[in-house]
Amino acid sequence: MYRTHNCGELRQSDVNSEVTLSGWVQKIRDLGAMTFIDLRDRYGITQLFFNKEDNSELHSQTEKLGREFVIQVKGKVTERSSKNPDMPTGDIEITVSELNVLSKSDVPPFTIEDETDGGEEIRMKYRYLDLRRAKVQKGIILRNRMAQEIRQYLIKNDFLEIETPFLIKSTPEGARDFVVPSRMAEGKFYALPQSPQVFKQLLMIGGYDKYFQLTKCFRDEDFRSDRQPEFTQIDCEMSFVERDDILNLFEGLAKHMFKEIKNIDFTEPFVRIAYDDAMEMYGSDRPDLRFDMKISDLTEVVKGNNFKVFDDAEFVGAICAEGLAGYSRKQTDKLIKWVQRPQIGAKGLVFAKYNEDGTFKSSVDKFYSQEDLKKWADATNAKPGDLILLMSGSKRKTLLALGELRLEMGNRLELRDDNKFAPLWIVDFPLFEKDEETGQMHAVHHPFTSPKKDQFHLIETNPENIKAEAYDLVVNGNEIGGGSIRIHDTELQEKMFKILGFTEEEAKAQFGFLMNAFKYGAPPHGGIAFGFDRWVALFNGSESIRDVIAFPKNNAGRDIMIDAPSEIDAEQLKDLSLAIVRE
Amino acid sequence: MYRTHNCGELRQSDVNSEVTLSGWVQKIRDLGAMTFIDLRDRYGITQLFFNKEDNSELHSQTEKLGREFVIQVKGKVTERSSKNPDMPTGDIEITVSELNVLSKSDVPPFTIEDETDGGEEIRMKYRYLDLRRAKVQKGIILRNRMAQEIRQYLIKNDFLEIETPFLIKSTPEGARDFVVPSRMAEGKFYALPQSPQVFKQLLMIGGYDKYFQLTKCFRDEDFRSDRQPEFTQIDCEMSFVERDDILNLFEGLAKHMFKEIKNIDFTEPFVRIAYDDAMEMYGSDRPDLRFDMKISDLTEVVKGNNFKVFDDAEFVGAICAEGLAGYSRKQTDKLIKWVQRPQIGAKGLVFAKYNEDGTFKSSVDKFYSQEDLKKWADATNAKPGDLILLMSGSKRKTLLALGELRLEMGNRLELRDDNKFAPLWIVDFPLFEKDEETGQMHAVHHPFTSPKKDQFHLIETNPENIKAEAYDLVVNGNEIGGGSIRIHDTELQEKMFKILGFTEEEAKAQFGFLMNAFKYGAPPHGGIAFGFDRWVALFNGSESIRDVIAFPKNNAGRDIMIDAPSEIDAEQLKDLSLAIVRE
Repeated sequence: MYRTHNCGELRQSDVNSEVTLSGWVQKIRDLGAMTFIDLRDRYGITQLFFNKEDNSELHSQTEKLGREFVIQVKGKVTERSSKNPDMPTGDIEITVSELNVLSKSDVPPFTIEDETDGGEEIRMKYRYLDLRRAKVQKGIILRNRMAQEIRQYLIKNDFLEIETPFLIKSTPEGARDFVVPSRMAEGKFYALPQSPQVFKQLLMIGGYDKYFQLTKCFRDEDFRSDRQPEFTQIDCEMSFVERDDILNLFEGLAKHMFKEIKNIDFTEPFVRIAYDDAMEMYGSDRPDLRFDMKISDLTEVVKGNNFKVFDDAEFVGAICAEGLAGYSRKQTDKLIKWVQRPQIGAKGLVFAKYNEDGTFKSSVDKFYSQEDLKKWADATNAKPGDLILLMSGSKRKTLLALGELRLEMGNRLELRDDNKFAPLWIVDFPLFEKDEETGQMHAVHHPFTSPKKDQFHLIETNPENIKAEAYDLVVNGNEIGGGSIRIHDTELQEKMFKILGFTEEEAKAQFGFLMNAFKYGAPPHGGIAFGFDRWVALFNGSESIRDVIAFPKNNAGRDIMIDAPSEIDAEQLKDLSLAIVRE
Repeated sequence: MYRTHNCGELRQSDVNSEVTLSGWVQKIRDLGAMTFIDLRDRYGITQLFFNKEDNSELHSQTEKLGREFVIQVKGKVTERSSKNPDMPTGDIEITVSELNVLSKSDVPPFTIEDETDGGEEIRMKYRYLDLRRAKVQKGIILRNRMAQEIRQYLIKNDFLEIETPFLIKSTPEGARDFVVPSRMAEGKFYALPQSPQVFKQLLMIGGYDKYFQLTKCFRDEDFRSDRQPEFTQIDCEMSFVERDDILNLFEGLAKHMFKEIKNIDFTEPFVRIAYDDAMEMYGSDRPDLRFDMKISDLTEVVKGNNFKVFDDAEFVGAICAEGLAGYSRKQTDKLIKWVQRPQIGAKGLVFAKYNEDGTFKSSVDKFYSQEDLKKWADATNAKPGDLILLMSGSKRKTLLALGELRLEMGNRLELRDDNKFAPLWIVDFPLFEKDEETGQMHAVHHPFTSPKKDQFHLIETNPENIKAEAYDLVVNGNEIGGGSIRIHDTELQEKMFKILGFTEEEAKAQFGFLMNAFKYGAPPHGGIAFGFDRWVALFNGSESIRDVIAFPKNNAGRDIMIDAPSEIDAEQLKDLSLAIVRE
């Protein structure tokens, strides 16, 4: 037997027990006559004690050890003379009587500590060593726990976990599909699923009224920061439900997770905000509600003072940054630069300081009197000491820019506490968005999303105004999940495809089997999918989802540890009837 | 709200409640003045009652309904005048007051009944309808339950469920890899995992000493009956363990599953049989122990009687089929034909009937006296009334053929009861097998399998005789799981690769990262993987794993419902820098 205990469990009450431990050498302190070794495994660290006087031969063996050696020791649990209250095992140590080296280790390329000296690149290359760090382990273990808690909640609610296939058919969003050449069917390809969407709808038609699955999905996108080509989705679907049935059940899931994982009790219902309202109030469809700082519409208030920028603007909005009236010229200049970065893309920023003495100082004093500025303060609920920030332009773009500025000011004011959580639902998304260039309509959610019932009739005449039975769960500015009630009517689905620019043949080729399935008694249904990686990262306090994925790929989609993707032999290409065409 | 109850839960105690139900129309019985409809969902069937006299307008609506329509009804639970004790809801019916059609249905292409009129091809094409059949549902629901039970057991035993990547690197068994062309890295490919083998070993090196995962694996094989290109594996690995630690823990899992799912208590340890013994006794490395009928070695017993076939044979073996001495000439002739089929490939079969009167009648009476045949009976423990069946030839081939014959006789004697389970471990597999043509050694399990400790020294001199620390869990003739203790020593692993015919470069290119990982303190480790599809099929009493997969592919690897694999556009091929080369 390699061990009787792990390295995290021995306590004062075990003193005098004979034990066997195995683990990694975390640290060696050679004090000459005595040597202390910290032995580590995923459960903790236990201190080993070797005394030269008691057993000099054994003691000398420790000299050959190094960091990350795997060793097995036998010995007696003894009370420490100087205890370490910061360690769960800090009351005891093992007085070692036998030492076996199970595996040697080269000097690792970075230190296996929370504060490591290894940069991201080298830690990714040696991910198996990075995974030994307690900080990384914490995320992986949390992920496991969250997966089990999610399953428990859903199983308790009569959901069935059902696996859907990975080798499927390329879909209209096909350009982002990863494909898999078939060896047996020359020139043909499977595709990897971007989501199990179609299959979960088929399961509803098949009568499995509560389905879920934690499953990998795949998307071949040009990599953006913190995207992975493969990611994990908590995919759920229900039949015989209306929107609120779904919101209530999955709000229950979120509350269960907050309670079990973060020990936070959300007793009140989550706020539900319509998409249009969220855009107007927060300039975002995933607002961070850990702080207020709503956007105020100043379009009417600021007009008529010969300030051409505002007079010509479709929309002028403002936020009020509490207590920042003291910002220096340098600070406001930097803020202007910040909104002018391409990520925000604003032309500029107007500000008005509401001084503690009740006077105002603005960057447009030429055009606006103190009385005018007082109106700005009233409209934004500013108090003396606050800083009012205004942006203008086309409405949508300005709102989005103000939304970004709001988050930045929230950061500066330290209003975005990692330990605070503000969940909400965004509802009533638009069904379509129009491509500004081509005029083509696209589905905001996906082509199976149902319009709101009372708006069905607009589908032929005024589709842009239709709202969808779609919803997102948002926490702290992150979209954690999203879904919709689906269309379960063949005719309506056909109209949708038409509006989305599919020819009849295209719709049939891509979704014929689904359309066909609708003919045989489709129940009303809807669902939701959660981004599991993002949710775990949020609960783990991680910036990046890479932190909570055991073997992530880098931003270029490469696994630099195993060196993939890589070349395959000519023989295999030939078997697949493929040739590489270099440009 | 679409429903207050499902179609399986209303009972006598609900009589007089007002309820709302939704579901599929299973059956309509129109008795003129009264109509009865069976309403179905995945929870059961509830009878609906429409009375013309009470509400003729409502009653007339039922005339427009058809099989598989989705309807919603409101009404009162009433006690049935004639109860149906075979149905859980058989005491009650719903006296309907309101009927809404939620979805119409075309006449389904086959009946949604356990005994359906649809052949396999059409049921696969309309799998979403096939999935409505109670028989199919049972398998899918069982699968969900088994997955949850497996997780519970492993989580209780401190295992962590950790996801490993799907977009990985092609391996030496590469010819069977499905590959995924990379768009971003021209001419390069990911591969889909045939198993997470390498990643679970890296997780052990990373310190996650108890790992598991229910995950999809992929193998691009020429399809054999009941193989799927994608299949689900229960993948497990542990550190600081020896073989018996693993066998004991996973025997515990198997017992847990037998108890929870089949309500069978295996209180005794599972039998453990060495591979060599299994081959000699049962002619199989996955013997069906629901019945005995061991193979007897008659090589010495039958020699020296001038029967050239036996005199020249390396091996002569026999089984005794109890009570079949009465087989007619026609029956034995058919049996001879059976062993001559290419699947068995035997030249023939010698038999001896041990008649009830104590005399013998054999197909080789010319060469063997009654006394000779009595010796056969003694060697095979045959009693009067039994049939002794002998085969001869090279030892291995003959044992395998006798193994097949044993199963066939077990079937004929009805000794293979679906409700009986005989689990066992096969241990001490050979480490290598030699390719008869090329002389090249192959790993029986895989290249990371550890030789048995006391046989390490044979690796250079006599590798063929080395046994491996490998094991299979076998139930009723099915290999349910298999695994091994792994090599955790770089030097030994390098020797293995050499014997397996890898050049140093090949080994480095394919497994460099793993070999490198071994340098940084690899713990002793081992694991096991279970074929989840097969296990569920076994517990479900299904012949084929297709029965317990929601959306299976056919034997040619096609999903005929969605029509995959299929062609992709030229544009997408170009993006992938690929061209199709038709032969």
